[in-house]
Amino acid sequence: MTANARERVAEAIEQMPLVDHHVHGMLADPLAEADLLDAMVQASHVEDRAAVFDSQFGFAVRRWCAPALGLEPFADAAEYLAARSELGFDEATSRLLRASGITTYLIDGGHAPERLVPDERMMRLADARSHPIVRLETLAEGAMSGASSGADFLDRLEGALTAASERAVGYKTVAAYRTGLALEPARPTAAEVGGAADAWFAAGDPRLTDATVIRHLAWWALEQGSVLQVHVGFGDGDLRLDRADPFLLQPFLAATQHAGGRVVLLHCYPFVREAGMLAHLYPHVHLDAGLALGQVGANADVVLRETLDLTPFSKLLFSTDAWGAPERVLVGAAAWRNAATDVLADYVDRHGWPADEAIRIAELMAWRNAEALYGRHFVTP
Amino acid sequence: MTANARERVAEAIEQMPLVDHHVHGMLADPLAEADLLDAMVQASHVEDRAAVFDSQFGFAVRRWCAPALGLEPFADAAEYLAARSELGFDEATSRLLRASGITTYLIDGGHAPERLVPDERMMRLADARSHPIVRLETLAEGAMSGASSGADFLDRLEGALTAASERAVGYKTVAAYRTGLALEPARPTAAEVGGAADAWFAAGDPRLTDATVIRHLAWWALEQGSVLQVHVGFGDGDLRLDRADPFLLQPFLAATQHAGGRVVLLHCYPFVREAGMLAHLYPHVHLDAGLALGQVGANADVVLRETLDLTPFSKLLFSTDAWGAPERVLVGAAAWRNAATDVLADYVDRHGWPADEAIRIAELMAWRNAEALYGRHFVTP
Amino acid sequence: MTANARERVAEAIEQMPLVDHHVHGMLADPLAEADLLDAMVQASHVEDRAAVFDSQFGFAVRRWCAPALGLEPFADAAEYLAARSELGFDEATSRLLRASGITTYLIDGGHAPERLVPDERMMRLADARSHPIVRLETLAEGAMSGASSGADFLDRLEGALTAASERAVGYKTVAAYRTGLALEPARPTAAEVGGAADAWFAAGDPRLTDATVIRHLAWWALEQGSVLQVHVGFGDGDLRLDRADPFLLQPFLAATQHAGGRVVLLHCYPFVREAGMLAHLYPHVHLDAGLALGQVGANADVVLRETLDLTPFSKLLFSTDAWGAPERVLVGAAAWRNAATDVLADYVDRHGWPADEAIRIAELMAWRNAEALYGRHFVTP
Repeated sequence: MTANARERVAEAIEQMPLVDHHVHGMLADPLAEADLLDAMVQASHVEDRAAVFDSQFGFAVRRWCAPALGLEPFADAAEYLAARSELGFDEATSRLLRASGITTYLIDGGHAPERLVPDERMMRLADARSHPIVRLETLAEGAMSGASSGADFLDRLEGALTAASERAVGYKTVAAYRTGLALEPARPTAAEVGGAADAWFAAGDPRLTDATVIRHLAWWALEQGSVLQVHVGFGDGDLRLDRADPFLLQPFLAATQHAGGRVVLLHCYPFVREAGMLAHLYPHVHLDAGLALGQVGANADVVLRETLDLTPFSKLLFSTDAWGAPERVLVGAAAWRNAATDVLADYVDRHGWPADEAIRIAELMAWRNAEALYGRHFVTP
Repeated sequence: MTANARERVAEAIEQMPLVDHHVHGMLADPLAEADLLDAMVQASHVEDRAAVFDSQFGFAVRRWCAPALGLEPFADAAEYLAARSELGFDEATSRLLRASGITTYLIDGGHAPERLVPDERMMRLADARSHPIVRLETLAEGAMSGASSGADFLDRLEGALTAASERAVGYKTVAAYRTGLALEPARPTAAEVGGAADAWFAAGDPRLTDATVIRHLAWWALEQGSVLQVHVGFGDGDLRLDRADPFLLQPFLAATQHAGGRVVLLHCYPFVREAGMLAHLYPHVHLDAGLALGQVGANADVVLRETLDLTPFSKLLFSTDAWGAPERVLVGAAAWRNAATDVLADYVDRHGWPADEAIRIAELMAWRNAEALYGRHFVTP
Repeated sequence: MTANARERVAEAIEQMPLVDHHVHGMLADPLAEADLLDAMVQASHVEDRAAVFDSQFGFAVRRWCAPALGLEPFADAAEYLAARSELGFDEATSRLLRASGITTYLIDGGHAPERLVPDERMMRLADARSHPIVRLETLAEGAMSGASSGADFLDRLEGALTAASERAVGYKTVAAYRTGLALEPARPTAAEVGGAADAWFAAGDPRLTDATVIRHLAWWALEQGSVLQVHVGFGDGDLRLDRADPFLLQPFLAATQHAGGRVVLLHCYPFVREAGMLAHLYPHVHLDAGLALGQVGANADVVLRETLDLTPFSKLLFSTDAWGAPERVLVGAAAWRNAATDVLADYVDRHGWPADEAIRIAELMAWRNAEALYGRHFVTP
């Protein structure tokens, strides 16, 4: 490859608008340092700055976020946190979000919404648009919280789903956290759902862990013809990791391939090749490697390349899965741009791919696939 | 490394004859485009050209197959399919197969043989030789189809196995598709096999899914002193992927290590390191990463390198696992040559390996290991 | 990166002292060639020189050990073994150990100690210091061997643990070999431990395979505030590999995070990313990729890089896991230095890391993290 071709690929990817098809809200101000540090990683209660900054993610913050705040690249943790504090919440948040080049966010507001800034404020800071993704378990828990019986819960749930369908661009399930991914494949019958609703009501648990109710929600979303995002792999300590392998979801995917909707496997790390195999085999399966790309920082090219083993290029999406810290938004976007450039320029260089084709594939991942999937709802850029 | 050393490695690998120790037949003419597209991937019923061509495999076809048909590299899907059609079945097939440099094919004819060209015709088109691998489940299903009882099935099976042993250079089991790889290790007793045969006969299922009968077949092949190919990992949608992990086969491998025969773990992706660990631990275990290398295209070097983590160099084989489309033969061979060159030249370059040694290891993988394993039957090149 | 920066990183890593925090003793002289070959790999009873030398490990021996014995790099197996024999046991062992640059060894003497040279003699040959790691299952088996009842076993065990705690710098469990890693998380009650001791005594098995006794030992070590090393992943043929996945240990890790001690996941291959995720999530979890780095030779950079995906940099350690053959010590150290240089120089080169920071992270892995973990016991270098 001529240096020219690599530069063309790099420049095109640098300028590309991004649709972050899976992200959460940002922690509200005033923002305590301890909360910020916790939000930067998946662990809870990190001990000190070094526990966050001496990691791939920490080095990525120093590389990409420090300049956005006006510092030299690789300014250290103390300088970084001081500058952030001096700029103030709005200015720091805005600079970090805007530096990402993300123009559209699909926001899953289902985790700890009371701690987060409203989407509208986040969008003003980001100078971007957002659309909601509805987390099905949270919706069901809301319906149960006021219900007087299992049957009343199902009535309320139906109302809540109908209301959600008027605003949601897609749905998400955290079945991996609640039951694991080895879901029974069949659509549960009305009688089964009724029985499960009664049992959940009787148990009095505010948290939904009933597999039948979760399957009912997942099937409902797919039969709407909508997009169902499914958490897979890497998450936080609440997750039983041995139950988050996407291969466990295969019977469910096989059963739902003609249900009408589409599935996006989220995160997937370290099972990105397994997820790619499922996207190869089943027409309705898509995936991203969000969360992981930012957290693994300088290793993002390895992970992104693995997602490109078997996933059809029309089925791979970009996301940051950021929650709480805008650093995760910028690092997620920058790690993706950097990795996509390295990987695609390598295909141009060592495998002779035309540079235009490499750029076209990058655009599919950056926003075109998201638009095709969710796109009656928005047009990008 | 001097450019000279890399060139020597590349040139040697470019010229090397290949033994494809695991391949299937090619779809017969006239060849409908929909069938050709389906045969190019593991998914069934692909929607359109883009679903195949916008993938690593599609880009690999454009890179390596387009020139074999007289087009520029990276000619697009429409040009490619038009040129293929214009050349006609025999000419296109012949060009693709011959461009692979494969001199010997070991053909597993057990999957949908009625749709495929006879081996002899394929060999004339390929200008190569072939030897049969017998798929044990297919053989057993044939024996059952005419049987009048479980005992009669076992008589017919014995006859069929004896006949097969006169022509087969090895056997294959698709236990992964039928029962999963967590086979009981012990050789089943005659009474157990008899009981299983009766039960299968009584069930009236034309498809063999009985684990005892499958173990009986596998032990039979190994006690013959023959080679038993075992499907592992990546396959098509009929396969329960969570049951195709080679670690599940470990008890069976431990039990059979002195049975007399040798095992080849086929494909293995994404479990290629796991398979390599088993080849490291057990003297009779070999492996290939066929199927995956072609399908992952420009990422084949990563996968091939992983197979070289722990696998003794005398135990790694080349295959394409092509079925139906001669593109899979050429892409499988070209992806292997390309990846082997990249990986081995890197060892020469960054790790000081003598170029002659790198070329020797490439030859082991290309054909010498296959000859040693199956070799009373043929001499290469 | 200027060539200068890469050279600085390479030179610093080349000179760095290493703490091998998990190693075993060396086979005593006279050393039969068959025993030496067996000790070089994880398989038992290797057939011939080629089975060892035609592998990544064999090529690594030729690359790094041949020069330590005064030969050209990549001298062949016959030359290598002849030179080794000519130098004699002490001289060859000493040269190989000293060439590693390891200054401190933490030795697990629990496997076949009767075949090994005493630690003191090994240290004279190595010109280094050592400290003992106590293997808990071996200690318990010793206590059981003279016991007259389950209760007597527990008395003897308590005495043995108290004695061990006066010399041990840490403990190791091979639960993966005995029960698999899916340990029940809760600390077993005294009554449960008593019942398990009685049952083991009654069974008369010299080998400890009781999960309750093993959990008792593991909790004991952690409640001491000590370090508990846990075998994970790759081992020898005695191990059920499908039970050695670190994700299976997650409930135990979640339960013990505030017990007071720290856990080191050993080896981990091929589950190094999974292990890194656990180190990311749980404050007391550390890891190494010992054993694998030496065995995969020229591929060590890929594996090391994967360990650096999610593991906080303060939680990754160096080890060789050598047993029997000093070649494994030198290859383990050289493979680590080589891989660390490649990976960290790449971060400097392609990701802009300051060279000083890359060197600092290398030092954490080489010895500082080990000192912090075990360090009331020694100071390095």
